[in-house]
Amino acid sequence: MPEAVYCAGKTVDQCVHIVSELLDLDRSGLDRGDAIVATRADPDQRHALLALDPSAWSGSTLTWRHRLPTSFTVAIVAAGTSDLPVAEEARLTLEAYGHRTMQRTDVGVAGLHRLIGILPDLEAADLIVAIAGMEGALPTVLAGLVSQPIVAIPTSVGYGTSFGGATALLSMLASCAPGIAAVGIDNGFGAACVAHRMLRLKR
Amino acid sequence: MPEAVYCAGKTVDQCVHIVSELLDLDRSGLDRGDAIVATRADPDQRHALLALDPSAWSGSTLTWRHRLPTSFTVAIVAAGTSDLPVAEEARLTLEAYGHRTMQRTDVGVAGLHRLIGILPDLEAADLIVAIAGMEGALPTVLAGLVSQPIVAIPTSVGYGTSFGGATALLSMLASCAPGIAAVGIDNGFGAACVAHRMLRLKR
Amino acid sequence: MPEAVYCAGKTVDQCVHIVSELLDLDRSGLDRGDAIVATRADPDQRHALLALDPSAWSGSTLTWRHRLPTSFTVAIVAAGTSDLPVAEEARLTLEAYGHRTMQRTDVGVAGLHRLIGILPDLEAADLIVAIAGMEGALPTVLAGLVSQPIVAIPTSVGYGTSFGGATALLSMLASCAPGIAAVGIDNGFGAACVAHRMLRLKR
Amino acid sequence: MPEAVYCAGKTVDQCVHIVSELLDLDRSGLDRGDAIVATRADPDQRHALLALDPSAWSGSTLTWRHRLPTSFTVAIVAAGTSDLPVAEEARLTLEAYGHRTMQRTDVGVAGLHRLIGILPDLEAADLIVAIAGMEGALPTVLAGLVSQPIVAIPTSVGYGTSFGGATALLSMLASCAPGIAAVGIDNGFGAACVAHRMLRLKR
Amino acid sequence: MPEAVYCAGKTVDQCVHIVSELLDLDRSGLDRGDAIVATRADPDQRHALLALDPSAWSGSTLTWRHRLPTSFTVAIVAAGTSDLPVAEEARLTLEAYGHRTMQRTDVGVAGLHRLIGILPDLEAADLIVAIAGMEGALPTVLAGLVSQPIVAIPTSVGYGTSFGGATALLSMLASCAPGIAAVGIDNGFGAACVAHRMLRLKR
Amino acid sequence: MPEAVYCAGKTVDQCVHIVSELLDLDRSGLDRGDAIVATRADPDQRHALLALDPSAWSGSTLTWRHRLPTSFTVAIVAAGTSDLPVAEEARLTLEAYGHRTMQRTDVGVAGLHRLIGILPDLEAADLIVAIAGMEGALPTVLAGLVSQPIVAIPTSVGYGTSFGGATALLSMLASCAPGIAAVGIDNGFGAACVAHRMLRLKR
Amino acid sequence: MPEAVYCAGKTVDQCVHIVSELLDLDRSGLDRGDAIVATRADPDQRHALLALDPSAWSGSTLTWRHRLPTSFTVAIVAAGTSDLPVAEEARLTLEAYGHRTMQRTDVGVAGLHRLIGILPDLEAADLIVAIAGMEGALPTVLAGLVSQPIVAIPTSVGYGTSFGGATALLSMLASCAPGIAAVGIDNGFGAACVAHRMLRLKR
Amino acid sequence: MPEAVYCAGKTVDQCVHIVSELLDLDRSGLDRGDAIVATRADPDQRHALLALDPSAWSGSTLTWRHRLPTSFTVAIVAAGTSDLPVAEEARLTLEAYGHRTMQRTDVGVAGLHRLIGILPDLEAADLIVAIAGMEGALPTVLAGLVSQPIVAIPTSVGYGTSFGGATALLSMLASCAPGIAAVGIDNGFGAACVAHRMLRLKR
Repeated sequence: MPEAVYCAGKTVDQCVHIVSELLDLDRSGLDRGDAIVATRADPDQRHALLALDPSAWSGSTLTWRHRLPTSFTVAIVAAGTSDLPVAEEARLTLEAYGHRTMQRTDVGVAGLHRLIGILPDLEAADLIVAIAGMEGALPTVLAGLVSQPIVAIPTSVGYGTSFGGATALLSMLASCAPGIAAVGIDNGFGAACVAHRMLRLKR
Repeated sequence: MPEAVYCAGKTVDQCVHIVSELLDLDRSGLDRGDAIVATRADPDQRHALLALDPSAWSGSTLTWRHRLPTSFTVAIVAAGTSDLPVAEEARLTLEAYGHRTMQRTDVGVAGLHRLIGILPDLEAADLIVAIAGMEGALPTVLAGLVSQPIVAIPTSVGYGTSFGGATALLSMLASCAPGIAAVGIDNGFGAACVAHRMLRLKR
Repeated sequence: MPEAVYCAGKTVDQCVHIVSELLDLDRSGLDRGDAIVATRADPDQRHALLALDPSAWSGSTLTWRHRLPTSFTVAIVAAGTSDLPVAEEARLTLEAYGHRTMQRTDVGVAGLHRLIGILPDLEAADLIVAIAGMEGALPTVLAGLVSQPIVAIPTSVGYGTSFGGATALLSMLASCAPGIAAVGIDNGFGAACVAHRMLRLKR
Repeated sequence: MPEAVYCAGKTVDQCVHIVSELLDLDRSGLDRGDAIVATRADPDQRHALLALDPSAWSGSTLTWRHRLPTSFTVAIVAAGTSDLPVAEEARLTLEAYGHRTMQRTDVGVAGLHRLIGILPDLEAADLIVAIAGMEGALPTVLAGLVSQPIVAIPTSVGYGTSFGGATALLSMLASCAPGIAAVGIDNGFGAACVAHRMLRLKR
Repeated sequence: MPEAVYCAGKTVDQCVHIVSELLDLDRSGLDRGDAIVATRADPDQRHALLALDPSAWSGSTLTWRHRLPTSFTVAIVAAGTSDLPVAEEARLTLEAYGHRTMQRTDVGVAGLHRLIGILPDLEAADLIVAIAGMEGALPTVLAGLVSQPIVAIPTSVGYGTSFGGATALLSMLASCAPGIAAVGIDNGFGAACVAHRMLRLKR
Repeated sequence: MPEAVYCAGKTVDQCVHIVSELLDLDRSGLDRGDAIVATRADPDQRHALLALDPSAWSGSTLTWRHRLPTSFTVAIVAAGTSDLPVAEEARLTLEAYGHRTMQRTDVGVAGLHRLIGILPDLEAADLIVAIAGMEGALPTVLAGLVSQPIVAIPTSVGYGTSFGGATALLSMLASCAPGIAAVGIDNGFGAACVAHRMLRLKR
Repeated sequence: MPEAVYCAGKTVDQCVHIVSELLDLDRSGLDRGDAIVATRADPDQRHALLALDPSAWSGSTLTWRHRLPTSFTVAIVAAGTSDLPVAEEARLTLEAYGHRTMQRTDVGVAGLHRLIGILPDLEAADLIVAIAGMEGALPTVLAGLVSQPIVAIPTSVGYGTSFGGATALLSMLASCAPGIAAVGIDNGFGAACVAHRMLRLKR
Repeated sequence: MPEAVYCAGKTVDQCVHIVSELLDLDRSGLDRGDAIVATRADPDQRHALLALDPSAWSGSTLTWRHRLPTSFTVAIVAAGTSDLPVAEEARLTLEAYGHRTMQRTDVGVAGLHRLIGILPDLEAADLIVAIAGMEGALPTVLAGLVSQPIVAIPTSVGYGTSFGGATALLSMLASCAPGIAAVGIDNGFGAACVAHRMLRLKR
């Protein structure tokens, strides 16, 4: 597992201090190939962390020192554009682990043709991270169409009855389609870690 | 609206007394064509009510005196066999109103081919009552495939995370597919009433 | 169904880009008569979208290219002045679909005479969108007074025990008056879509 | 306040022992005019308590030794027949306190004419106990029609979305009609106690 | 009942317009002695409403034209200093109705001696409005010490497990002390209305 | 800590097998002075376990082999008679640990004089286990009157709004009186373990 | 995926009919190597299904026709004996898929030495199904000790504050240890399906 | 117990006034050795209170006049850096009571070696305050490793499924490890008070 720094609730100084220590190979005991991921950085934290020169960043996620590339591909499928920040957190973490990613957005189940249209692309992936807010039905429908492992992320996207992602979460856990593995609300980082553990099976 | 007797929480005698009064045209002021529906009758209540000679019954629902047939057809689509009691409550109520019904079961979204297979049948219906427990995604997927009105009924069917139908209910209300009208959990009678109001538009 | 853009969680650029593409008949494959609706635009998003010259806007809702007028009228009945933003989202969406609307506000059930006073007006409507926060009793009382279809919208208006609209939502779903169809909290757009599906029955 | 014995969770012997002690004027220090109320007695407890010769009983409530009659009248208004057990708990407790009661049932807000039909009767009452399950709108509508104090009891009557009375409870507390005082779910005894405290104002 | 304007969710202009209309005796049909209360005014709304020259104001509540004084006294008892804004909303509303008020603060049940110290004062009151956040035990303890009617207001004051007042609300409704009437969270205005209805009994 | 067997969800045979193994000093590696506690035994499980000859039992709790007596006394204070099963689970576990117990029941905060009447007794205790359902205010009031440690147990006793003990639990955790330590709903065993850890401080 | 029959909510006849049809190779279109699993059979359903001669059964789960053995091993680790029914549902489903299983019970995190004692055994497994009720911490602790994929099942085992498994579920989803994939409460079948999808990666 | 001022919901002036009164020995009746603690001060309140010259402060907590030192040591163990503000509230309160504290941070159960690494330090403590957000498993694991009393504080730290600390709270209360005493979410002050009561046992 890579070293991860969850920035929410920490001061800017704490974030910079922790990442700096991890980057210092002598003090952290880490290896040049050990990735570091910082998640949920607010704009001030991100600004300060960018000075530490990350390998990649997007939104509230930053990564340093990626692992050696693997030969595995993870499809990241998001129901809507508003789910993108969560998708990006998953993508950056997976790439820090050395995996290839393939992103498909705006394939909600209300427009089934778009979802069916990307099925051939999905066949090339080793596993699928499926992201949805609102009623969270995307992983359920996908599970009936593909045989790969599916890691489902509920997001807090949606109108009032979405209750901050609780509706999508419960929907994914109560799914009539067997074989869906869920992580917590908006937890792109966690889903990437589940995927990484799974891909070790393939090695 | 037909006269409806909600049996839960009433004694057997109260149920029989209320239905008897409604059946007595002089005392109730009803018309020979005014339907009567009793819902949620437990076995003892049902046994006693059957002595009043209903026009039809199934499970916990009984009906007396159906209305004149209309020319409208309602498709009742249920995700699984376990949803049948709720589907029957809706069907009997709709038939008491004089509407034709068409029932399709076991078309959950995890087996999309079965759902797509009944789409031609659904085209013949004026409106659709969509019933699902667990993650409750059936109305969401249907809403992207048909243009008729959809009345969605969440059911209390499912494993622990279904939370007695709350998950399906929230899923239907937070749906990414616009145009779904929901009723309360297991409320087959209520959905039939919503459908009946809608069909008045067609007259 | 019209094309709808849900702005919450999108950047200003994403909103403008999506609407621009939809407005471009060549790229979107849409027709000159296909309406476009943008909902939940925050002030910055709205400001940018106004530059795209909408047909109408109010609060956080904007519409482009309305459909041909139909001959149907939808009554939009709101319990209080604070429910107006939700009523406006429903009204603009319905007008984009080509329907006539009739708005009546401040007819909460605590002042029954005001509600009874508008009943003659409501008789002229094909269906009713009933909007209420707090205890959400308006659709229940209306359902006993009129025979048209009622689409109920719970709103997040109210004191602490309103719990962000959950109380009104549950009240509408558990209603003792049969025949109420509910949508999610504050979902004026969704209610308009339900109404539009229903009105197709009349054509 | 009268002595009250809440039977749920007690053994039959504990119930009989406690009531026997209260009936023994020497040991309890009570007065011949001090009423005793036992609530929530299950059939076994009730059977044993009936041997202690109560003044009145109905369902799970029993009373001994009523107070001197007062000149006050409480109207007990219940939305449906299924709410009767709660209404009876309130009625017996009020009568044990010496108050007159007037019971009106089946006046749910979906049939407004029945509710309006009893308004002249209600004018003769000093205060009103309003009982409703499902959406719990009865006290809200009453509060707009009468000026007496209203004590609202939510009941656990209703379909799945009633959530055991929570919906009715929240509805009564979030009411748009000011001046409703609520007690807990199914708490007929508690409502009677609130009413009794209020009526002391009149003395 | 006085005319009440709930400002939350309304624009500044809407608030001013509604109150101005109510103040205009010709247009509103009100009487010179009919009180007007505006609640939950934010600083901008309050600033604008102060120009309409209220009779009294405090925090987010303003009142115009008080009723003729009655001879009744209401004790307003608050568990802590943080509950004062809710106490003030109740006090101003009661005074607009013409009643005398007596305020006692910082008498939480963890310091029983302070509460017992004010019992002699409370004896002079006709009824008691008891206000508490956190565990909300104040009305329960009071109910065992006094015989007057008690109107309980749960407040959203407290640490995380207070859950915005839900804990205090449930505590008041589940109280082991019979005879507590509750209103919604932070609803000082509603409690005053309940008290006013009760005091009519005394006239 | 003693060995504890939680019987719920186990078969009768599993319960007997586990306790038998623990009683066998050779196989369990336990000492003659190591207590064994079985909790939540249903009548069938209890019947079978009684054949293993416990040192003490009451309701659903049984104990074998008590520890050497300590010199510490724990007061177990329960708000009502219905809380006794939980009190007994705590008492038996504490006695298995070798501690003296002192039980006081029916000292709810609605009858403050009874509670104040036992304060002299409580002074003799080293710590207090306070048990209450409904609004759960007992530990809050006690915390203002005594200086010993207080372990609070919420119980599932009470009317509908008690929500199976959740109300009492939240009330104890949100208490305005500092210094209350809570355990889970109905968890008499857990409270005894907390008390036992605390009393080690005294040794 | 194997054919699965969820028995809850179905009649005995429906269960037997569905399984019989699946067993008939001509009518079901299945293959001699396609496994069938029936879950949540109550005693009556199980009795009737046993006449159809299953390959294996335990508790409420029955399986027919297992797949060809794979070379993969799944460790099923349960925190307590009361979690065994859920573990058995997972085990039988996995064995129907052809996988080897290894079961370890009673390794809750409160006895860390027992958990650490089985770590060498776990190293031989390809993936781990971790089952726990109460506070559900087992998967969190395991995730810090092993690098295989972990599928977590929350169970409804535990005292009142377990809230039917909701506590364990939330705990697993909010885990501080990255890389845990969760399924719904008590969903042993679902966890086996997730594991089966993952093991396809290894083929 | 020391005097405590809960600043949230109070004005700056109210905070300063209350603390000033407490500091004035004549008016407050306090002793020179009676500690004063102010908690949950926002930056404005803190700024004003710092002018009253506290003995110590950190974040939102300030203390004046510490008690005479005791010989007791409390270990404050926090799962992560983000839990530090809660740990500081506990630490300052304990030090105001005169106790020694020992702080260990970043010992979450996902890195068991760090937790096991501090066990020798913990042996020197009289009792342990264990602080964790997310899944809240830290006190459960600690309870299996140490025999001292454990006071558990759930914090609102964590991703969406942490639900503001509710997940950690429930986890601590439903723990499989007996002997954990919990306080409310983020309630560092309350935990210190529980610890202080416990340490009186040692005197």
